[in-house]
Parts: sequence; structure tokens; C-alpha cells
Amino acid sequence: MTDLPTDVEIHEEGPREGFQIEPGPIATADKIRLIETLAQTGLRHIQVCSFVNTRLVPGWADAEAVVDGFSAKPGVEYTGLFFNGNGLDRALAFKHKLTINGSISLTASEGFTRKNLNRSHAENVEAMKKHSALQQAKGVAVTRIGVMAAFGCNYQGDISPAEVISTLRDGLAIAAETGAEITLFSLADTMGWATPARIERVINEVRSRWPDMLLSLHLHDTRGLAVANAHAGLKLGVTRYDSTVGGLGGCPFAGQPKAAGNICTEELVMLCEEMGIETGVDLDALIEAGRLAEAIVGHQLPSELIHAGSFGCVPAQGGVTRSSD
Amino acid sequence: MTDLPTDVEIHEEGPREGFQIEPGPIATADKIRLIETLAQTGLRHIQVCSFVNTRLVPGWADAEAVVDGFSAKPGVEYTGLFFNGNGLDRALAFKHKLTINGSISLTASEGFTRKNLNRSHAENVEAMKKHSALQQAKGVAVTRIGVMAAFGCNYQGDISPAEVISTLRDGLAIAAETGAEITLFSLADTMGWATPARIERVINEVRSRWPDMLLSLHLHDTRGLAVANAHAGLKLGVTRYDSTVGGLGGCPFAGQPKAAGNICTEELVMLCEEMGIETGVDLDALIEAGRLAEAIVGHQLPSELIHAGSFGCVPAQGGVTRSSD
Repeated sequence: MTDLPTDVEIHEEGPREGFQIEPGPIATADKIRLIETLAQTGLRHIQVCSFVNTRLVPGWADAEAVVDGFSAKPGVEYTGLFFNGNGLDRALAFKHKLTINGSISLTASEGFTRKNLNRSHAENVEAMKKHSALQQAKGVAVTRIGVMAAFGCNYQGDISPAEVISTLRDGLAIAAETGAEITLFSLADTMGWATPARIERVINEVRSRWPDMLLSLHLHDTRGLAVANAHAGLKLGVTRYDSTVGGLGGCPFAGQPKAAGNICTEELVMLCEEMGIETGVDLDALIEAGRLAEAIVGHQLPSELIHAGSFGCVPAQGGVTRSSD
Repeated sequence: MTDLPTDVEIHEEGPREGFQIEPGPIATADKIRLIETLAQTGLRHIQVCSFVNTRLVPGWADAEAVVDGFSAKPGVEYTGLFFNGNGLDRALAFKHKLTINGSISLTASEGFTRKNLNRSHAENVEAMKKHSALQQAKGVAVTRIGVMAAFGCNYQGDISPAEVISTLRDGLAIAAETGAEITLFSLADTMGWATPARIERVINEVRSRWPDMLLSLHLHDTRGLAVANAHAGLKLGVTRYDSTVGGLGGCPFAGQPKAAGNICTEELVMLCEEMGIETGVDLDALIEAGRLAEAIVGHQLPSELIHAGSFGCVPAQGGVTRSSD
């Protein structure tokens, strides 16, 4: 009795998440080099930049230069993040090169909505109605509902599955009102509150209501449980994951200045491949990409795997180790 | 349908594993302070030192001073590691304070046996016969068979479940020949080759042969999968785990100079408690102990949880964060 998927779709967000949080600046050429290296690993979905307010996120002032600069590999889908009409217009200027997917983005926590967006959940619902309509008016299909803080919140505490359900219902109401057809729910553990038990509770509740909806997990390793959470998701048959090479990213939230970033792509890939779940990714090539990312940011990244390397043997020579276990 | 245990027994090995690998020296008083702090967290099994050859492991030259120095808390079991008669004699000098358990220690990998002990598996079996008899002659019951490299080996590659079974059989033969009654198999992922899939394969094979034997997992986070591996173990009903506070430890093996240490006790505790599995440990007190360990060693430890803190809220004030997921 298993729900294990035969394969999963990994969405690499290292370039976008990682270079957004680094004190930087990271050279445009380095960003391009990492994107092109990642495309050679077998990854087929790479988020390459964020079209955000340059004043708020100076690390992405060069978004256009990055998108313009990298050589796209056929078969790989490249995306750019946007939050509003201005960001969308900037993305649309590269529609020959980027895949542009529309989204309704909500948060299961009122406290985090206020912190993150300076508005109430009700105000955010209204804003998302306009944003959904705007995206479609510009020819971008809105197919995804994203729910941030789906497993807990630094500003509000525990988030119940009922709050996630309620948020998804709000998203579906926005979609219905604006004529969007939703095919994907993305559940984000924005502040690292997920645990395998919480993943199971939320996924089971969502599944019981929308059994046919495609689900995606966006996991952070803030409290060290990201890979265990992915393991729980895989056991439940969740087939889509966001991740970042090397564990790029980090946590900009209060009280967690040294917290880890997203789940490491390479640890996720190793987990899947070992479970017999195909990722399409060459693990050793990905580990090399993680090492490149580490060299680019100039400090140790959270990934253990890029430091240990994948399974491989070394000659038994040199001193005796005297290990006990 | 679940095999989830109601509670688990955690064996804290941070003081022994951690201070063995640090370039040090770590002050004896600091070791004692960490041991006493750990005993206040609810942990009931703490390995406090290693009675090893001081030339090979200079970090434990002060084993006697540490054991002599800490104040034992009633109800907490303190142990010291030993490999041979000399180490056992040093431990027995503190039998009023230490719990002394006998063990038969083998390795599922011939390559690692040679590297670690400079002997063949067959020679190690002979040595363990003598060691088992010696322990019992000194009044120490031998109840445990430990198998190192049970999930893979840097010097030999994959280790099959059949090799683990064969090693356990060798251990049981030693026990039978020397009159030892074995109640526990400890399976160690010495070089970080375990994955949830490998854990499942090995545990299921062992269980099918010895359904009533108590099993223990000793996990390393070398490739970032330790918590996921513990999750797999818990799902299979494994009730005993070794771990180190803060993820103290590290990997002395070839090719892995920056590799992580053991599974973090605090991440294991959070995982269990969230699954409804009792550990008896106060997570926040344990996180404070991890922070003390980090202060003592003077560099960042691998634990994410000691940096992020346990679940807790902060007031929603300050700047807007503009997170996307």
C-alpha cells in the first residue's frame, strides 16, 4: 500500500531565492553562469529572477540583464517571479524566453499577511481579484493558487488545516469571480513550521476536499526538517516540489537571522532517486552546480550533500580512524 | 495502519562524539557544564566520554576528570565509550557513576573494518569473541550487537541488507559462543549512506528474521538526510536513537572534511513530539543546551533548530518583508 509517485517535478528556485537574500552584490555574469550550469543538470524548471521593486530587493536590480544574458536550453522552462502589473510587464518583455504562469497568492496567516504585505487578508483577497483579472487581461492564464505560511507562522503561531482550507476556498472564489481555471495548489512553509506530522494533516485535509488537484510543496529548512517533510510529502504522493540548489536562500524573518534557506535540490533529488522516484536530474552534476553556487556567494551553503559528495568510494589508505559507530 | 511508537529512547552522544572531533582543546569544565546542562533537559541517557587511547584521541585525555567532575542527576544514565579491556577498566573505576553496558561491535563492510581497525572481518570476529568474554569476566553483561556501516561505506560502496544480516549472524554466533544474551541490535550509518529507502530495506530484512529484537539507529547527517532517515525509522516503529545535541560530531572520513555530524538531538525531538511520540525532553531547554555547545566549540554547529528556535511568535512589527512563498 503506497502512494509513492513514479516521478516528481522539481522547480529550481536557487537563482531567484538565493541571490535575493545574499548581501551581495552578486555579479550578473555569475547569476547567468549558475542558471546555465543548472540547465545542464537535467532540471527542467528554473526560476531565474525576480521582477520586483529594485528599492526593496536591490539584489534583483539586474533582472533584465540576467534574463537577456543567459542562453536558454531547449526543453527547459525558465520563469521569473512577479507580484504586480509592473513586474508582469517586465516579465512579458521576455515572453519569448520565459514561461509566464499566472498565480493567485494568499497567506493562511492574517499576521503574516500584515507583516509581509501591510494589508489584511480581506484586503489581500481584493488585491488578488484585481491581480487575477489583470494577469488574464494581459493574456496570462491564472492556474495556480499559492498559500504562504500553510504550516505555521512566526507572527501568528500554529496554522490549522482549516485555515489552509479556508484560504484555498478564498483563492477558488477569486478564481471563479475572475474566470481563472485553477489546476495547482502550492503550499508554502514560508517560515519553517512544517513537520512530517503537519504535512500529513494539511495534505490529507486538502486532498479530502479536492482529490484531483495537483499539489506542490515549497519547503524551507529553517528547523532542519525540510528533507523529512519532503519524505512525508512523497509518501503521500505529492509530485511537485520547489527547492534551491545548495540550499540557497535563507530566512528574512524576525528572530531567525542565521536560519537556513529552502530545501536543497540535491538532497531532494537523492531522497527521490533512492526511493525509486525519477527526477530526471544528474545528481553529481547538480552537486557541482551547488558547489558553484557556494563559490559564487562566497560562504558555506547549508547543503550537506555538496560537502560530502554523493555516494562514492575512496581507497582505504592512510591512518586508522578508530570510529565507534 | 501505523507502526508509530508511543515513545522513543534517545541516547545523547554529543559530549563524547562532539568533543572527540573538535580541534580543541575543550576545557574539562566546559565538557562538564554541557553534560550537566543536558541532564536538565529531560534526556535520560548521556554518553559523557570516551575511554580511548589518549594518543589516538587527545580530545579525551581528560575522560577521568570529566567523569569525576560532573554531578550526576538521579534517573539519568551516564555511559562512557570503551573498545578494549584497558578502556573497560578505566570505565569500571567509575562504576558507581557510570552505567556500563557490554557490546559486540562489528562492521558490515570489510573495507571499513580494515580502514578503521586495521584488521579483516574474520580477525575482528576473533577479537570480538575475546572482548565479549573479557567484558563478561569483568562482570559486564554483553547485550548489544553494533553494526557499523550498515547502510553503505565510503571504502566499499553499497552495503546490502544481506551483508547486514550476515554481520548480525556473526555477532550472534560470538554471543552464543561466549554466553552473552543479546537484546539489542544497533545499526549505525557510520559514513552517511542511509536514505529512507535504505533504512526501510535493512530494517525490514532484520525484522523478518528477528522480529522481537530491540533495534536502535545511529544516524549521521553527512548527506543531509538524517532527519528523513529517523522519520523512516519512526514510521517502522524503531524506538531507540543515538543523536548529538547541536549536531555535534563530524566526519573523520576521507573525502568529507566539511561533512556534518550526527543527527541533531533537538531536530529528532521536534520530529518525534510533532508525530505524537514522547521523548521526555523539554525542547526549548535542549535548544539552549545546543546553543551552549555551539558557544563551547566556538563555531557554528550544523543544527538548524538552535539557530531558528522552536515554534514561537514574534510581534509583527518593523519593515515589510515582501516574501513570495
